[in-house]
Amino acid sequence: MMNKINELFGTRYPVVQGGMAWCSGWRLAAAVSNAGGLGVIGAGSMTPAVLQEHVRRYRAVTNRPFGVNLPLTVRDIEDMVSAIIGEAVPIVFTSAGSPRAWTRIFQERGIIVVHVVSSARFAVKCEEAGVDAIVAEGFEAGGHNGREETTTLCLLPAIRRVTTLPLLAAGGIGTGEAMLAARVLGADGVQVGTRFALTRESSAHENFKRLCLSLEEGETRLLLKKLVPTRLAKGDFMTAVEEAEARGASADELRELLGSGRARAGIFEGDLSAGELEIGQVASLFRHEQGAAEVVEEIVAEYERALARHATWTLDD
Amino acid sequence: MMNKINELFGTRYPVVQGGMAWCSGWRLAAAVSNAGGLGVIGAGSMTPAVLQEHVRRYRAVTNRPFGVNLPLTVRDIEDMVSAIIGEAVPIVFTSAGSPRAWTRIFQERGIIVVHVVSSARFAVKCEEAGVDAIVAEGFEAGGHNGREETTTLCLLPAIRRVTTLPLLAAGGIGTGEAMLAARVLGADGVQVGTRFALTRESSAHENFKRLCLSLEEGETRLLLKKLVPTRLAKGDFMTAVEEAEARGASADELRELLGSGRARAGIFEGDLSAGELEIGQVASLFRHEQGAAEVVEEIVAEYERALARHATWTLDD
Repeated sequence: MMNKINELFGTRYPVVQGGMAWCSGWRLAAAVSNAGGLGVIGAGSMTPAVLQEHVRRYRAVTNRPFGVNLPLTVRDIEDMVSAIIGEAVPIVFTSAGSPRAWTRIFQERGIIVVHVVSSARFAVKCEEAGVDAIVAEGFEAGGHNGREETTTLCLLPAIRRVTTLPLLAAGGIGTGEAMLAARVLGADGVQVGTRFALTRESSAHENFKRLCLSLEEGETRLLLKKLVPTRLAKGDFMTAVEEAEARGASADELRELLGSGRARAGIFEGDLSAGELEIGQVASLFRHEQGAAEVVEEIVAEYERALARHATWTLDD
Repeated sequence: MMNKINELFGTRYPVVQGGMAWCSGWRLAAAVSNAGGLGVIGAGSMTPAVLQEHVRRYRAVTNRPFGVNLPLTVRDIEDMVSAIIGEAVPIVFTSAGSPRAWTRIFQERGIIVVHVVSSARFAVKCEEAGVDAIVAEGFEAGGHNGREETTTLCLLPAIRRVTTLPLLAAGGIGTGEAMLAARVLGADGVQVGTRFALTRESSAHENFKRLCLSLEEGETRLLLKKLVPTRLAKGDFMTAVEEAEARGASADELRELLGSGRARAGIFEGDLSAGELEIGQVASLFRHEQGAAEVVEEIVAEYERALARHATWTLDD
């Protein structure tokens, strides 16, 4: 089964690095791809020109396959699509919009299209739109999230029932044990965001990484549900949002509180007070900054060890 | 590893039926135990006399081991403890309180104590209190839930790191694939609530079962967070709670809205309009009422099939 992802992407391991705003530029993507996974450049925080620059710098250091993550809600969507096509990016991960909007246009240029969903209903739409693979992202994931609040444990089997497309599990996955669990639940591979966001090659600010590597259980929260549900890490901004929501703040009030540029301030510039800090629930399992290649190697080694340990488990043992 | 649970409880399979208010009396518990799992009588909705009656009726039909689930918040806690000790119940599952309160008292009478937790911090307290085993219950679970909102996928490895105690996974688990995934993540066995709540032997009302067996993804919600976080299924009461919370209702207002007797009305009497409907997120995976023995057999068969299918999976396959 894992073969499906390796075959589709030309990778050695079915370990995809999630494309994350302010974290995943060419440097992180290249480190992951060189270690045998699939690096993904996160275009959500880039202009088309910056994206072009990242693709070119990526290609200057490695010729391994890579992807670009494109939230379909970006303002300059047409220019972003042009930049991706112009640079002949091999794989695009689309999210936050309809899979029908751009899939054919990319595929006609030979670009592989993967769409991110948070429900089986959208997985069916992906299949109808003809995408090449699906990412199923659960409630645990950092940043923008689905309205259904379905966890990865419940989401994977629901999606596996409605489609035979290659399936990547995302949300709550940062170890090889979780990768094996995801496979048992129907995934062919995994997309890991949080753990790679906190590696040395991530372009996130050291303050942000340090905070996230010190989080305890329960210190991320899915908030801003009247706008777009977003998983935030503890800090002044999260407290302000929690207080506003507890007193029943409207979508307009939350929009005003959020303002603009907060994710950049928090994640990229390290302003832990005013910044919006987006990270996944699984962050609390990790305590040390690592290199991205080391993370890929650890996940693969943990997976292999878990598989060997569990291969002979019957219920009567 | 599974051995730990089977050895501790004297069961054939490490499949525990969650003790659930208004669902799990002697009939459901006996059906699960006779099928090789562990049946658990849910004392949360019983008086001490009713609990005594259920234990006696259980014993009239089977001599298999069984448990009683005791939320430590029940009003008549001392009488409940006396009833459990008086009936020589072999295993007690305590929840919603400190594991230090009653563990020794039960253990001195030869009763095995299992405590339900939603965080690694409380798992450490369980170990300090000397409990015999732990249930780790994630965000997916129905009814009362932890404040941390940690999902089963993230919770199991966090708990496995801090304790070597026998560990049952709960929340989001209703299939053999999920049981294997839970084992990969560090559990020794599973506690299944939702799927057993919807079996023929469950004392829940047919209206409630029918509704739960028709739920789509996203149609349960974790609400009432200003009181005790509770996972509800869609219906008039859930809508009323969602509207109240969206406008910032206080804990007092929510308490008044909740009133008393709503869970009984919804789950036991089948009043889908006024009743409080508590069920887990995994309900949307199931569509048909089954017998409890059939559920145990299916979970075991699915587990064995999943194990055989996955035993040889390496990453390069």
